[in-house]
Amino acid sequence: MPSSQRRDPHRLLPVDPSTRAIAADLYARVAAAPIISPHGHVPPSLLLDDQPFANPADLFITNDHYVTRLLHAAGVDLAELGADADPREAWRLLARHWHLFAGTASGYWIDEALGTVLGIDPPLTMHTYDEIASRLTEPGFRPRALFDRFGIEFLATTDDPLDDLAVHAQLQSAGLRVAPTFRPDRYVDPDNAGFADAVARLGQMTFAGYLAALEARREHFIRHGAVSADHGVVEPYTVDLDPADAERLFQLVLVGGGTVEERRTFRGHMLLQLARMSVDDGLVMTIHAGVLRNHSTPTFDRFGPDTGHDLPVPTSFVHGLRPLLERFGLERDLHIVLFTVDETAYSREIAPMASFYPSLYIGAPWWFLDAPDAMARVRSAVTETAGFYRSSGFIDDTRAFLSIPARHDTARRADAGYLARLVREGRVDLSAAERIIDDLVGDIPRAVFKL
Amino acid sequence: MPSSQRRDPHRLLPVDPSTRAIAADLYARVAAAPIISPHGHVPPSLLLDDQPFANPADLFITNDHYVTRLLHAAGVDLAELGADADPREAWRLLARHWHLFAGTASGYWIDEALGTVLGIDPPLTMHTYDEIASRLTEPGFRPRALFDRFGIEFLATTDDPLDDLAVHAQLQSAGLRVAPTFRPDRYVDPDNAGFADAVARLGQMTFAGYLAALEARREHFIRHGAVSADHGVVEPYTVDLDPADAERLFQLVLVGGGTVEERRTFRGHMLLQLARMSVDDGLVMTIHAGVLRNHSTPTFDRFGPDTGHDLPVPTSFVHGLRPLLERFGLERDLHIVLFTVDETAYSREIAPMASFYPSLYIGAPWWFLDAPDAMARVRSAVTETAGFYRSSGFIDDTRAFLSIPARHDTARRADAGYLARLVREGRVDLSAAERIIDDLVGDIPRAVFKL
Amino acid sequence: MPSSQRRDPHRLLPVDPSTRAIAADLYARVAAAPIISPHGHVPPSLLLDDQPFANPADLFITNDHYVTRLLHAAGVDLAELGADADPREAWRLLARHWHLFAGTASGYWIDEALGTVLGIDPPLTMHTYDEIASRLTEPGFRPRALFDRFGIEFLATTDDPLDDLAVHAQLQSAGLRVAPTFRPDRYVDPDNAGFADAVARLGQMTFAGYLAALEARREHFIRHGAVSADHGVVEPYTVDLDPADAERLFQLVLVGGGTVEERRTFRGHMLLQLARMSVDDGLVMTIHAGVLRNHSTPTFDRFGPDTGHDLPVPTSFVHGLRPLLERFGLERDLHIVLFTVDETAYSREIAPMASFYPSLYIGAPWWFLDAPDAMARVRSAVTETAGFYRSSGFIDDTRAFLSIPARHDTARRADAGYLARLVREGRVDLSAAERIIDDLVGDIPRAVFKL
Repeated sequence: MPSSQRRDPHRLLPVDPSTRAIAADLYARVAAAPIISPHGHVPPSLLLDDQPFANPADLFITNDHYVTRLLHAAGVDLAELGADADPREAWRLLARHWHLFAGTASGYWIDEALGTVLGIDPPLTMHTYDEIASRLTEPGFRPRALFDRFGIEFLATTDDPLDDLAVHAQLQSAGLRVAPTFRPDRYVDPDNAGFADAVARLGQMTFAGYLAALEARREHFIRHGAVSADHGVVEPYTVDLDPADAERLFQLVLVGGGTVEERRTFRGHMLLQLARMSVDDGLVMTIHAGVLRNHSTPTFDRFGPDTGHDLPVPTSFVHGLRPLLERFGLERDLHIVLFTVDETAYSREIAPMASFYPSLYIGAPWWFLDAPDAMARVRSAVTETAGFYRSSGFIDDTRAFLSIPARHDTARRADAGYLARLVREGRVDLSAAERIIDDLVGDIPRAVFKL
Repeated sequence: MPSSQRRDPHRLLPVDPSTRAIAADLYARVAAAPIISPHGHVPPSLLLDDQPFANPADLFITNDHYVTRLLHAAGVDLAELGADADPREAWRLLARHWHLFAGTASGYWIDEALGTVLGIDPPLTMHTYDEIASRLTEPGFRPRALFDRFGIEFLATTDDPLDDLAVHAQLQSAGLRVAPTFRPDRYVDPDNAGFADAVARLGQMTFAGYLAALEARREHFIRHGAVSADHGVVEPYTVDLDPADAERLFQLVLVGGGTVEERRTFRGHMLLQLARMSVDDGLVMTIHAGVLRNHSTPTFDRFGPDTGHDLPVPTSFVHGLRPLLERFGLERDLHIVLFTVDETAYSREIAPMASFYPSLYIGAPWWFLDAPDAMARVRSAVTETAGFYRSSGFIDDTRAFLSIPARHDTARRADAGYLARLVREGRVDLSAAERIIDDLVGDIPRAVFKL
Repeated sequence: MPSSQRRDPHRLLPVDPSTRAIAADLYARVAAAPIISPHGHVPPSLLLDDQPFANPADLFITNDHYVTRLLHAAGVDLAELGADADPREAWRLLARHWHLFAGTASGYWIDEALGTVLGIDPPLTMHTYDEIASRLTEPGFRPRALFDRFGIEFLATTDDPLDDLAVHAQLQSAGLRVAPTFRPDRYVDPDNAGFADAVARLGQMTFAGYLAALEARREHFIRHGAVSADHGVVEPYTVDLDPADAERLFQLVLVGGGTVEERRTFRGHMLLQLARMSVDDGLVMTIHAGVLRNHSTPTFDRFGPDTGHDLPVPTSFVHGLRPLLERFGLERDLHIVLFTVDETAYSREIAPMASFYPSLYIGAPWWFLDAPDAMARVRSAVTETAGFYRSSGFIDDTRAFLSIPARHDTARRADAGYLARLVREGRVDLSAAERIIDDLVGDIPRAVFKL
């Protein structure tokens, strides 16, 4: 990796020299620590097939809605960036608009992947395309080789509840700790277009049977190494219903009926039921709340979901999670990790809740907040209330495989910088800071995700 | 205090050397200034009885829900930390989990109390317990001696409207400026379980009589030195009603009737009536808004209120306070201090409101926000709009007596740091900064609280 | 300008020495760049008449509700500061309360105007009054001379749709690029007291005729150099109606009818119609959202609008703008600039939206947020998601003519400081930072406002 040395070794660390020195020491402790990635979207077949990446556009553009969205905002048609586009032309569009990415998280990740993973110097041009393409032909740049080089100790994927998980079984046989994650959104949200079909595939037509079918699938996931179940919701809203009401609502929404409020109630009850299942089977529950999916209908109609127009909305947890927490909040073996893209919730709600309820953990800065300044804001927002040990450890949540080390590295640098400031301000002893940064990349995610 | 020297004298000050030097000079001006504590929860009998503190757990754990909540989140049963628990065992639990407090406000306060007040060196262990216990037997560590040593010029307690205030009278006879604060929440909120009983104790069964009874109690408080009345509300909501409607609502809620909205209206009208009383009798009105009390019913049922699960909710003041402000907002002798734990309200609403209405003041960062980073955020959020002279001065709001000097000291350091940055950025002259920091600990709280 | 040298040349730049050095270099590139002011409230007659400013109070107090509001909060009656007050007495009130402005944006602007524009040294006293008065008699301090000295390349005013724009025509004939801005609020909001009269003046009694009349006035504005239309709304809410429903609602609200919700629907439909007009005629659309006007009715009754009690409320864009964006959001020639005084919307909504929709731009920090710390917070909140090229460039939005260079200078310093930190943190190359700061004051506002 000749070029990785050329990147500033102190990048992202605080600018004050004495603080930077402490931060550099703290960072050095964990720079090469194994990567624990308990939530993300890497396709497991990528690792099983272990084929060379198709081309630089496929690697850095086509599948990365962080990148395509900003090009789209600049006037590029998404069709010019998709799987059917000419990859060189797609890259040309990226290169032409590369200055738009200055200061962004995705620009930084690409710089890191080029410099640190692929050993390619800036600037990003058409020449870069050829350099990457050349690298991709080398055995050392296949997915499995990179998996090893990245030092990934544990990688969770995100999967449909009816997935047979055969790919995971094969990966585990091959010695890779790649675990599935149970993601039942489309099976539990009546407003999801595929809801009725999904439930039908579960093959149960009573509410009790439906719950049992979900439980059985969770068992299947657990047998294949799953440690968590993931839930994407627009609002973190829960409702406790008695079985008869739940049955009635289930039958109603199953045939596309129910008012907006009734469908909301059903969804809210299912989030509570899924917590109950986690109490029973031990799967960690991650809740990603507050994103309105597919805001632009014309874009959705042309290009489908995950094309850059999922948008955050104001999010509050205290009222909506109360029914769930009244039932299960004091369960010590229940782990719920709360993620938000409305960062106001961190100091106002998430830190106060997670510093009382043993079941609640503060999720790492997610999505638009997965960036150095935002990380600093979030640590500042939660630590004075909840300390470091109620947070989840870093979670990359990515489908961009090459960005995984850059994302974890960014979090390590951000935490080193935050801790170094506390040391310099006399708020944390250096020895305590050393333990904390070690734990943040190791024991904390292992404990939160029961690894 | 041998060990206080061992604490970093520049703790909490900015890390940039030249900024830190200015901050240190500004801090030095006020480090030893008298403490004005216009709102808090110290029991007045603590000072009247002047008994030695029972034991280290009683002092640092049992009564401090900042501490117990974080231990509870770590899996400790609250029963192991309560008044009936073995204090050594409670301390052992604190010592075992002490690393969880790194970076938290309450961890810092305990460090300060140990190092600066009690002269005990870290680390916090079982040996610390014995050291504290030994200190507590010395006369110099009784409440009154500490009150003197802390340099408390004025201390307000928080009291029930029907309290006879005999304890305050005795303290004042003894020369201590300890004033009661009129806190009528349970007398004015129909959703409070004790509402009907509380009103019954006032002995008046018409709305006019009820208001007169509250006014009479306020007079009783004023005769005993009270300067303010405190109001804890979930939402800062006010309603102006004509007397007939108010009477009708009063009779309705008094017997447990009324819809959710009617009880809200009554509560909102009472907040407006209490402002009217403040216009009439001059008591400063403090409003602590936006906390949902007793979120965890099972915890409340076992351990009662104030056990760590009061949680902030999104809070907005502009619409809700408008009826009150339309009636009384331009009264120059009315002082209303607004507190929030939704920090978004500071730049969006509280600073704009307080920089127009002569009756409104910006409350100090409160509860979860009473910590160095949060203080810096709040100063940054309000100062560019409202300057320094629309803020209330620091308020400790604590029942943890030993933390009082640490809390005021933290605010002084935070303000020195913020001002030093403005000086270094050429935004405030050094001489202006000197006047401001003097005023922040002296003339400003005296003026806001009419001392 | 002898005294401008006495102001700290590094004011507002970061305190860390190496970061400050980079920031100073970046700032130096743009310190003297021409001022592009695409939205503001300078009366065009000020420049056409080119009379000397009446007196120092007229210049710095009477018309500046940033200043009068803080004096009012301190207990000054607004009548003592108005056009009918003795200007020397008004100035005396400012001088007496000048310490209240320490740390505020308006205090800084006045310091800048005095030091840099007028060459007058601090402190601000009655002597200052005489010095300013003396300057105002000099030809070099008339509005046109200052316009030239400030280096204003483009200045937009804000105007009533029925304004004949003769003043603008004369200014343009004289070679000044002073453009009108179409501001139709009172013509489209049924809750505005002057709505019916305003619509009547358009002379059309059908909805189609009313729309056509607005379109015709926009054409008139475009012929007089307008580049944008500005919209002040309490909530960014849009509704798509079919023509029959719109016609029915129009007739209803025109006679003062309709429920609260119907008037809201009409207003929301008009915002969508105005976007449709922008698609048709190319006027940039600026939306200033989230301010509740005239909060204090007694103040409004005595002193009218714009007297310091317009207050921000919680603001969210994602749901409310969806109907508009579903119709027009992907139009590449449509430019909508979103302004908020609820800063939580920046990271949560505005940056995510503007980094997908080609029609949306991130408005500069506005009103209470037009200040150094707030600017830093906003850059931090949006850049990691949206980069620099989805922001609008700086907008002064002021009626205080003498503050224009100070406001633009503040933004340039703030951006230099932010960029310098990114350079020092290894996130942006110095050469990229140089291009960005050049673009922020030049190509970016020119592109966003189609200059």
